[in-house]
Amino acid sequence: MLKNLKSDAFKILNEAIESVLPENAVLETLKSLKLHDEKIVLVAIGKAAWRMAKAAKEFLGERIKKGIVITKYAHNAGPIDDLIICEAGHPIPDENSIKATEMALKLVENLSKNDIVLFLISGGGSALFEKPKGSVTLEQLQKITEQLLKSGANIVEINTIRKHLSEVKGGRFAEKVYPAKVVCLILSDVLGDRLDSIASGPAYPDETTSEDAINIIRKYGIEVDENLLNELMEETPKSLENAEHYIIGSVKTVCIKAEEIAKKLGYNTMILTTTLDCEAREAGRFIASIAREEKNNSLPLKKPCAIIMGGETVVHVTGNGKGGRNQELALSAAEGIAGLEDVVICSVGTDGTDGPTDAAGGIVDGKTLEKLSKAGIDLDEVLKNNDSYNALKTVEGLIFTGPTGTNVNDLIFLLVS
Amino acid sequence: MLKNLKSDAFKILNEAIESVLPENAVLETLKSLKLHDEKIVLVAIGKAAWRMAKAAKEFLGERIKKGIVITKYAHNAGPIDDLIICEAGHPIPDENSIKATEMALKLVENLSKNDIVLFLISGGGSALFEKPKGSVTLEQLQKITEQLLKSGANIVEINTIRKHLSEVKGGRFAEKVYPAKVVCLILSDVLGDRLDSIASGPAYPDETTSEDAINIIRKYGIEVDENLLNELMEETPKSLENAEHYIIGSVKTVCIKAEEIAKKLGYNTMILTTTLDCEAREAGRFIASIAREEKNNSLPLKKPCAIIMGGETVVHVTGNGKGGRNQELALSAAEGIAGLEDVVICSVGTDGTDGPTDAAGGIVDGKTLEKLSKAGIDLDEVLKNNDSYNALKTVEGLIFTGPTGTNVNDLIFLLVS
Repeated sequence: MLKNLKSDAFKILNEAIESVLPENAVLETLKSLKLHDEKIVLVAIGKAAWRMAKAAKEFLGERIKKGIVITKYAHNAGPIDDLIICEAGHPIPDENSIKATEMALKLVENLSKNDIVLFLISGGGSALFEKPKGSVTLEQLQKITEQLLKSGANIVEINTIRKHLSEVKGGRFAEKVYPAKVVCLILSDVLGDRLDSIASGPAYPDETTSEDAINIIRKYGIEVDENLLNELMEETPKSLENAEHYIIGSVKTVCIKAEEIAKKLGYNTMILTTTLDCEAREAGRFIASIAREEKNNSLPLKKPCAIIMGGETVVHVTGNGKGGRNQELALSAAEGIAGLEDVVICSVGTDGTDGPTDAAGGIVDGKTLEKLSKAGIDLDEVLKNNDSYNALKTVEGLIFTGPTGTNVNDLIFLLVS
Repeated sequence: MLKNLKSDAFKILNEAIESVLPENAVLETLKSLKLHDEKIVLVAIGKAAWRMAKAAKEFLGERIKKGIVITKYAHNAGPIDDLIICEAGHPIPDENSIKATEMALKLVENLSKNDIVLFLISGGGSALFEKPKGSVTLEQLQKITEQLLKSGANIVEINTIRKHLSEVKGGRFAEKVYPAKVVCLILSDVLGDRLDSIASGPAYPDETTSEDAINIIRKYGIEVDENLLNELMEETPKSLENAEHYIIGSVKTVCIKAEEIAKKLGYNTMILTTTLDCEAREAGRFIASIAREEKNNSLPLKKPCAIIMGGETVVHVTGNGKGGRNQELALSAAEGIAGLEDVVICSVGTDGTDGPTDAAGGIVDGKTLEKLSKAGIDLDEVLKNNDSYNALKTVEGLIFTGPTGTNVNDLIFLLVS
């Protein structure tokens, strides 16, 4: 069967991203949940909060008695009936994050055990849904978050600290909602979908301890006041009986959907990983080596084949060019598949914006390197300068989807026929 | 079925390496070839030349009329009947390379079309089997090779230049042997087993052209004399009718053998690639992400599973610690599988010496990171300092095989049960 790999690649990535758009993901789940309870309070947090809330309100109508949407600045797309809509700081929480969170806490006060809090969570929730605990000031919280980011602490470590300094994170929100039930619908942007990590787990029992928190502070040599230290010492809830969790979209969903489409298009398929997190350009080289194996030895799958990966690679910036991790991954793969026919490698951010560019990612094939070379572009130089955008633009290797309003990490795949 | 993953890993890697030991690989092939011709001239080049020649001589006995072994200094393990045995320079050819090569050319002069040259090729052949072409001096050849290595030229580029400046490379040796037949038995250390690249293809038609050679000189800004330029302009043979090639061992052989053993031990298996060539530590992170997928979602294979890779990763040295690419790959994978039970990742050089160490590689599991941490060792620091040897030593993560006498790149695999 003669295949148009590039056109197939675009079909796969477009349909896979569509399946995790906030509206589609929320509706799909609400239809199966059958919420008939008397009183639903809606709390939506994160970058996709507005779109998730809009879809929920349209579907549930009057069953939602009241609610609040807390999203990032410029993400309020207009009123949704009588829901309160707030914009706040991201990635560093600000005064508006706290005000909005206080309003949310007000809405869930004095609920009974038959009530439901429909809690819609998406990426960015950790900064947007925040109220410093007890004596902690916002300034202290901002400072320590900045220090941790600068010290190279990873997201799990940063969230461990955030949880222990927060009134709502690390399960403390669910504790406050009790005896009402919290039904969480989650668009996950955390690789591996750990419920205690996504938005710092406001409705999930916290596995991290005060000891962990103190160790992280020490590891990165961060100095803290005595009041902060005292707050860090207080434990988060270790079990919660009133919370239900549904991952309604994640990079895993995207990979499964991509596999489904590829199968329909006639490819033998495989999901290799959904938590890819290494350096983008090296991932590109690794994936190119799999492509060569397919081309030369028909391994690991019989051709035509689609090998699908999800994750979020990283870029250690060394230049001042324009690009993003997905573009850099794709571009760097071009060298390893140079000259091979019927091979396509692409990488795309499900949010539709890869790095500070208007492209969602990159797509390359066996002719890309030659095209670059003819245009006088040296691949090594481009990578050194992190200028994947301009290089891919020259060889028609950019993928444009426009901002999608969802963010569940990146989809990466390889087609060989 | 309860499995001992570490003990299985050692079984797999030991038996896989055994299958490509020079003696075993040569014997296996000679048995099937049935050489009954009147006169066989043996020419063995490379780091494994002595052991390959010894096995061939023992098997073929008097059918070998004369022959020469050209190997690296300190690789002559004693006389082999009346074969000439020479040691010479590697990785830069020296006067002894040229003298030995001249002797080899003498041995294959005036052969008839019923004669056979049994040509045993192993890694290092490119430097050891060399005679500068026409007016080119050894000094010129050494200088240009050094310049290319320093400029970061890859092995394919270096060999393109070597071929055009050589009396024996790029098919020119087979041309000189004509009308006799050249039967090449090859232990390949070139990823992808390209016959025109291994030892710079002395008996294989050359696809590279004078134009390619000139372009490489220009790319790296290397200045050349007029005589060198003239020699570069002369074309290598583009077709040869008197040469037969058998890859008797390569990293692909190793992977296939590893897969066979893993299957026998009850694992579901997959060869993912045999040409892995990215940065060692990033390969480790990539492979760890596949391990997590296996552990959490039983993808891409049903457990227990063995995912097998071959190749040769690279290390960009940033510190002054002790280690090698295989040790660095394994060590860096430890973080991504921390806490997971029944996961083992290992990486091993088939030559038994990984980097400037006495270890062949490294092996890690879900407890490695914790052990490092308890020993006060910070993984990031160790990687920054390229000190994988000492870190792995502390947690019993080193693999020792001793020097194996073969070199067909690296075997890397993942076991999950």
